[in-house]
Amino acid sequence: MPLTMSREVFITCAVTGSGGTQDRSPHVPRSPEAIAKSAIDAARAGAAIVHCHVRDPETGAPSRRLDLYREVTERIRDAEVDVVLNLTAGMGGDIVFGGTDSPLPVAPGTDMVGAEERVAHVAQCLPEICTLDCGTMNFAEADYVMTNTPGMLRAMGRMMTDLGVKPEIEAFDTGHLWFAKELVKEGVLDSPALVQLCMGVPWGAPDDLNTFMAMVNNVPQDWTFSAFSLGRNQMAYAAAAVLAGGHVRVGLEDNLWLDKGVLATNAQLVERAVGIVERMGARVMTPAEVRAKLGLVKRAPGA
Amino acid sequence: MPLTMSREVFITCAVTGSGGTQDRSPHVPRSPEAIAKSAIDAARAGAAIVHCHVRDPETGAPSRRLDLYREVTERIRDAEVDVVLNLTAGMGGDIVFGGTDSPLPVAPGTDMVGAEERVAHVAQCLPEICTLDCGTMNFAEADYVMTNTPGMLRAMGRMMTDLGVKPEIEAFDTGHLWFAKELVKEGVLDSPALVQLCMGVPWGAPDDLNTFMAMVNNVPQDWTFSAFSLGRNQMAYAAAAVLAGGHVRVGLEDNLWLDKGVLATNAQLVERAVGIVERMGARVMTPAEVRAKLGLVKRAPGA
Amino acid sequence: MPLTMSREVFITCAVTGSGGTQDRSPHVPRSPEAIAKSAIDAARAGAAIVHCHVRDPETGAPSRRLDLYREVTERIRDAEVDVVLNLTAGMGGDIVFGGTDSPLPVAPGTDMVGAEERVAHVAQCLPEICTLDCGTMNFAEADYVMTNTPGMLRAMGRMMTDLGVKPEIEAFDTGHLWFAKELVKEGVLDSPALVQLCMGVPWGAPDDLNTFMAMVNNVPQDWTFSAFSLGRNQMAYAAAAVLAGGHVRVGLEDNLWLDKGVLATNAQLVERAVGIVERMGARVMTPAEVRAKLGLVKRAPGA
Amino acid sequence: MPLTMSREVFITCAVTGSGGTQDRSPHVPRSPEAIAKSAIDAARAGAAIVHCHVRDPETGAPSRRLDLYREVTERIRDAEVDVVLNLTAGMGGDIVFGGTDSPLPVAPGTDMVGAEERVAHVAQCLPEICTLDCGTMNFAEADYVMTNTPGMLRAMGRMMTDLGVKPEIEAFDTGHLWFAKELVKEGVLDSPALVQLCMGVPWGAPDDLNTFMAMVNNVPQDWTFSAFSLGRNQMAYAAAAVLAGGHVRVGLEDNLWLDKGVLATNAQLVERAVGIVERMGARVMTPAEVRAKLGLVKRAPGA
Repeated sequence: MPLTMSREVFITCAVTGSGGTQDRSPHVPRSPEAIAKSAIDAARAGAAIVHCHVRDPETGAPSRRLDLYREVTERIRDAEVDVVLNLTAGMGGDIVFGGTDSPLPVAPGTDMVGAEERVAHVAQCLPEICTLDCGTMNFAEADYVMTNTPGMLRAMGRMMTDLGVKPEIEAFDTGHLWFAKELVKEGVLDSPALVQLCMGVPWGAPDDLNTFMAMVNNVPQDWTFSAFSLGRNQMAYAAAAVLAGGHVRVGLEDNLWLDKGVLATNAQLVERAVGIVERMGARVMTPAEVRAKLGLVKRAPGA
Repeated sequence: MPLTMSREVFITCAVTGSGGTQDRSPHVPRSPEAIAKSAIDAARAGAAIVHCHVRDPETGAPSRRLDLYREVTERIRDAEVDVVLNLTAGMGGDIVFGGTDSPLPVAPGTDMVGAEERVAHVAQCLPEICTLDCGTMNFAEADYVMTNTPGMLRAMGRMMTDLGVKPEIEAFDTGHLWFAKELVKEGVLDSPALVQLCMGVPWGAPDDLNTFMAMVNNVPQDWTFSAFSLGRNQMAYAAAAVLAGGHVRVGLEDNLWLDKGVLATNAQLVERAVGIVERMGARVMTPAEVRAKLGLVKRAPGA
Repeated sequence: MPLTMSREVFITCAVTGSGGTQDRSPHVPRSPEAIAKSAIDAARAGAAIVHCHVRDPETGAPSRRLDLYREVTERIRDAEVDVVLNLTAGMGGDIVFGGTDSPLPVAPGTDMVGAEERVAHVAQCLPEICTLDCGTMNFAEADYVMTNTPGMLRAMGRMMTDLGVKPEIEAFDTGHLWFAKELVKEGVLDSPALVQLCMGVPWGAPDDLNTFMAMVNNVPQDWTFSAFSLGRNQMAYAAAAVLAGGHVRVGLEDNLWLDKGVLATNAQLVERAVGIVERMGARVMTPAEVRAKLGLVKRAPGA
Repeated sequence: MPLTMSREVFITCAVTGSGGTQDRSPHVPRSPEAIAKSAIDAARAGAAIVHCHVRDPETGAPSRRLDLYREVTERIRDAEVDVVLNLTAGMGGDIVFGGTDSPLPVAPGTDMVGAEERVAHVAQCLPEICTLDCGTMNFAEADYVMTNTPGMLRAMGRMMTDLGVKPEIEAFDTGHLWFAKELVKEGVLDSPALVQLCMGVPWGAPDDLNTFMAMVNNVPQDWTFSAFSLGRNQMAYAAAAVLAGGHVRVGLEDNLWLDKGVLATNAQLVERAVGIVERMGARVMTPAEVRAKLGLVKRAPGA
């Protein structure tokens, strides 16, 4: 099937992530207040969706504390500017092995918990969207594995579906997308689904256009997809996503830099993406339009 | 081979073309003076190369008159702003057939001349670049064929090579690119060659990303390529070209509109392309850098 | 959309073609009797469709004589073995130019006739399928152009549709496929259509897999496609077509050789294709199955 | 870069694997004697390389016992027919989690050992080739993960390089191939490398041609690649690999069936692949030719 570029595009801002970036830029928000503020600023700049992790307010280390998620959620819901809330459910599937001589037992840094615990903040905060990292893979670190088994993904996916929270499938490689289609086929996830094509994350799919198109060609035609790449290629992928008929994700989770030597804020990254999208002849969608498109129900403040 | 996005990009402005657009926008330049002025404005806005046709100053109809080419060339060379000059050699290969009952004899509008005549203005003006439309194909018109036989292309290509004018191969479909490689293999054109991937021109290659990538994957690795699409997709293709490792062409030859309902000038189109290219994290190249990259020799004013 | 390999495959044998091959192999059939016999042998070997041109029985030169088409048609219809008849409508769109100094007037060898004349044998013989070469392009010869303007294709296509003969669209490059979709959109051709992807014919689309996949990705999902390449790659493309979800064409029109130094018969080429298709795990379809699939109506002998 | 089909092709037979297939076909060899015999039969049928795992002779369960590897190696080296020996190094990276409520501690079935232990049989047997599964991923089982961290792959890769045993990189998805290139860049593996594109293994890369071509386009031009898919698509992928310029792998590790309802032997699968490769116009390479191509040194019997 031929692909046609998007004429209407939503932008997701990935506000802070779980990476060890908190000490590399003063703009990476740590406290719930700072995360919410950065998210709201991004929404003002044109992001229809904000994708949030939480961090320990002191150390900036990634966290799964419910009270932090709750505070972020409330602050964003109470804000004057409207935005679709997307919370990560990626935490709790982290293994650090004991090295190449004796990989087991697992080492400190491991955080491997049950499905219910991984989804607890989703159940409590009921964001409109939460993420589902759709596979297991290596990252840049020597001994680390992001671990999401088929069984775990079925369990988590079913919980999300039951909660009425739309899963955003994170596909870091072609096999993750394949399994996502299996989850839909099994009835674990509703169709049409929403998928984020995560390109250029070592050691998942590289972000060359051939690989990207192979993934795009495998997204079912009635699904909605967004795409991003990391660092220097973040803004290039805003363009790539639009060209391939998808939507855009930018933000400090994926890239700290506005220009060479200039650290970015989330709002600045969103603003730049808007500048690309609009110059390409597409229109940036509002949160209300995204809800209508994806069938999301807005939760009231205090809900 | 993986493809990596361009970090340094040159922009060509296709200033006026040979299409019947002169009455559809007041900004389509007709006289040599107007063409040169629009080209120079485009150069000021960031175009390193200006690709020029000439038109009858009165009617705006496309023309092959040597004096018009000469005047455009001199005006551009005399300008204060530097720019690489690229003259079309596409004229003189036009057939209009006599309809579906009796296609022959050919009808008025036909302009089918010998190789020497098609290249005469190139020989006289010695631009740094001239185009070579690398095949024969239908266009949108019912009875028209753009006609460039293998024999004609060999003859014209050899003349260009002998003149020391760099041919910009225009590939309107995958077979044109294939034949361009044959011309290099035969020694008609020098290697590495320069090619323009002309996407979305009916009835050549459509501009979906799969087709574009098939063409990009077939460009020899040491060649330089640029790409464009038409109308509404012109700016999208500025992004596509950069992503795929190529260079950018915009201009009124390919698209008259800046925004819905807003007719563009060449300078505005170039400015918008610059806005995309720079936001994607690439740098716009100067004419001097293009000459160094492509091995072009700048002709002095009055040369 | 993901592509899945074909599990049921029909094989077309292109029996003799219009190329200057008649003196290069004793197996290229010339007379209607020889053409019909070779076609019937191919059917016995497993071809569900035979695609036939006619030739002057004496010289072997390609011909458009109605009596020859009529005789081939009758002989094939009268045969004991069942097969779907596909007649070319590619003749009569041939221009040979006068060389690179003065391309016009056209030279001997030119055969450019009106739509009605090009389709006359189709109207008379009413084969189940006839071909429609969906564009204009250069071939290997220096001064030759295969000429099928948009106007001519609309006229011929409409005649075929009115006659109830299924056009097999021949797409020699990506733009031909694009125009075929336009013909369907305009209602000239019925949907779903039947298309032959003609790969590796100089100077149309090259037969590398990237280009092939770009074409396959652009075939509408409810259409049926077949594909072939020339010479040495003919059998490789039998495999490629099956892998990409399509059907197979082989035969002496496209390739004269069975092995290095061994000239082939049509039946041998079909037999070899069957050997590939079946070993890949697909089943070869019968003429009756092809008629059911494509909605063809079998004409009785003497019809 | 355009891709051209292979004219000379080596076939690897994957003789027995580590899957739970031993009770599903009487032809899956278990004992060293049976494995060696099946490998030798495959070599006689045309396989230039045999890729062997070992199994418990009684139960058929996959094993890492050195004595079993040693016996298989000796039997194959002592055989009259020449063949390149390729031993797996995939064992010892297996985790079975404790389910979705409490994934840790790991469950029975887990076999996660250090790099030295995983390569011990390679060091002892010195096969000409051994495999390196270049990443971590889910498989069809709910709680299982094939685990090969970047650190483990660097350690194992370096040991193989130091031993003078050529690693065959197994890339089950696009990210694995990306990391393999990193290993070469880091000097862990020698260049040009040898890679097996493992398609259609749930939940790695699906085996549609778009995904396959994305992987092929990312294989460095001086590397050698082979490819396979599973089950019903095994023979189709013999054709796909040849078309894309690669080499072929078949065998009982990947597929048990010759035809519907007919269980295959390794020799039969190789013979069928030979039938496809040769009909496509390619030649099957000998073990000596493979050694010359890949720079392998044949170990003498008893070495």
